[in-house]
Amino acid sequence: MARTIMGAVVSLDGYLAKLNGEIGPLFEWYDNGDVEWRFSEKQEESARTTKASKEFMESVYTDIGAVVIGRRLFDETNGWGGVPAAGDRVFVVTHSVPRNWEFAATAPFTFVTDGVESAIEQAKEFTGDGQVDVAAGQVGGQALRLGLIDQVVMNVVPVVFGAGRPFFAAMGPGQDILFSNPTKVAQGDRVTHLLYDVRRN
Amino acid sequence: MARTIMGAVVSLDGYLAKLNGEIGPLFEWYDNGDVEWRFSEKQEESARTTKASKEFMESVYTDIGAVVIGRRLFDETNGWGGVPAAGDRVFVVTHSVPRNWEFAATAPFTFVTDGVESAIEQAKEFTGDGQVDVAAGQVGGQALRLGLIDQVVMNVVPVVFGAGRPFFAAMGPGQDILFSNPTKVAQGDRVTHLLYDVRRN
Repeated sequence: MARTIMGAVVSLDGYLAKLNGEIGPLFEWYDNGDVEWRFSEKQEESARTTKASKEFMESVYTDIGAVVIGRRLFDETNGWGGVPAAGDRVFVVTHSVPRNWEFAATAPFTFVTDGVESAIEQAKEFTGDGQVDVAAGQVGGQALRLGLIDQVVMNVVPVVFGAGRPFFAAMGPGQDILFSNPTKVAQGDRVTHLLYDVRRN
Repeated sequence: MARTIMGAVVSLDGYLAKLNGEIGPLFEWYDNGDVEWRFSEKQEESARTTKASKEFMESVYTDIGAVVIGRRLFDETNGWGGVPAAGDRVFVVTHSVPRNWEFAATAPFTFVTDGVESAIEQAKEFTGDGQVDVAAGQVGGQALRLGLIDQVVMNVVPVVFGAGRPFFAAMGPGQDILFSNPTKVAQGDRVTHLLYDVRRN
């Protein structure tokens, strides 16, 4: 059974990006180190991080089969030109299927119009025994509230934006969601990596 | 010259409390360990934490001379019955001095009606070479935006509230505020302690 992991790079005050979409120094750590590596074979550009960051990322993301994202990320990246940034298939949660997307015929993208739960179910079925990466933000927040997330990874950058797009978005008040103590902690340069299991109560 | 430190216990999604003021499991770590200690001689109740939490807290809070808080915390605690929870004097940022406070005649409390900057200035002058503890939230957020904070400590509890009163409040969009990499990290039980220096650019 596939496991779901929700993660992202996040400012110390909990934002994935500023209100205007800019990300400031959130990805400095991804290019300021001595150790060169690739997140997956498909990536063209390699990362250059500390050894600690490389080891954390490689130990956490071992086998991503599919990715679940929201419509905004899809639109902002134009679906990464039809090539998934990770995994073999992307499930896009959206109210309507985009018309005339130039890569629609060949890209391994599925547009899911009946909600986050359905998208995650389809992604898990596709993935088999691997990992389903659920984007933090609106989609991840809804999934977490629905009890559909197994692990959370936060790559915390020591910067405060003051306002922005939250990592834990679209949740609203409700029951406390308890996580384990962090099961992995790693200190990179301009990033602190934290991995949690979501407790099932 | 006194140093200013802004800190608090905070949920993983960045809240000091829920919208209704409840704190859920934020202080479990303060009473779930084997090591007994007191934050200051004035405290009646001792903490029982892990050794790691005790050592972190004692190494960070070495010499609190004064505390700066907002009016809400003052009202919610009734000024801790006129006895500062830490430090020798409390500076309360408020629009108006409370009338008929029962402890007004004897309590070492100063009500500051001309803003956060003035309160911190007075607290630093009072403190001399020690630490001024600035409450996170509205007051701390304003002070951070004004460049008046030297260090930030976050005691992060692995719980997600979904909504609440933010640690970094009242900031709004603006220039990025960069911190150092954490200068101390400690893992307790149900809390991760992080200490940062605020960089001056």
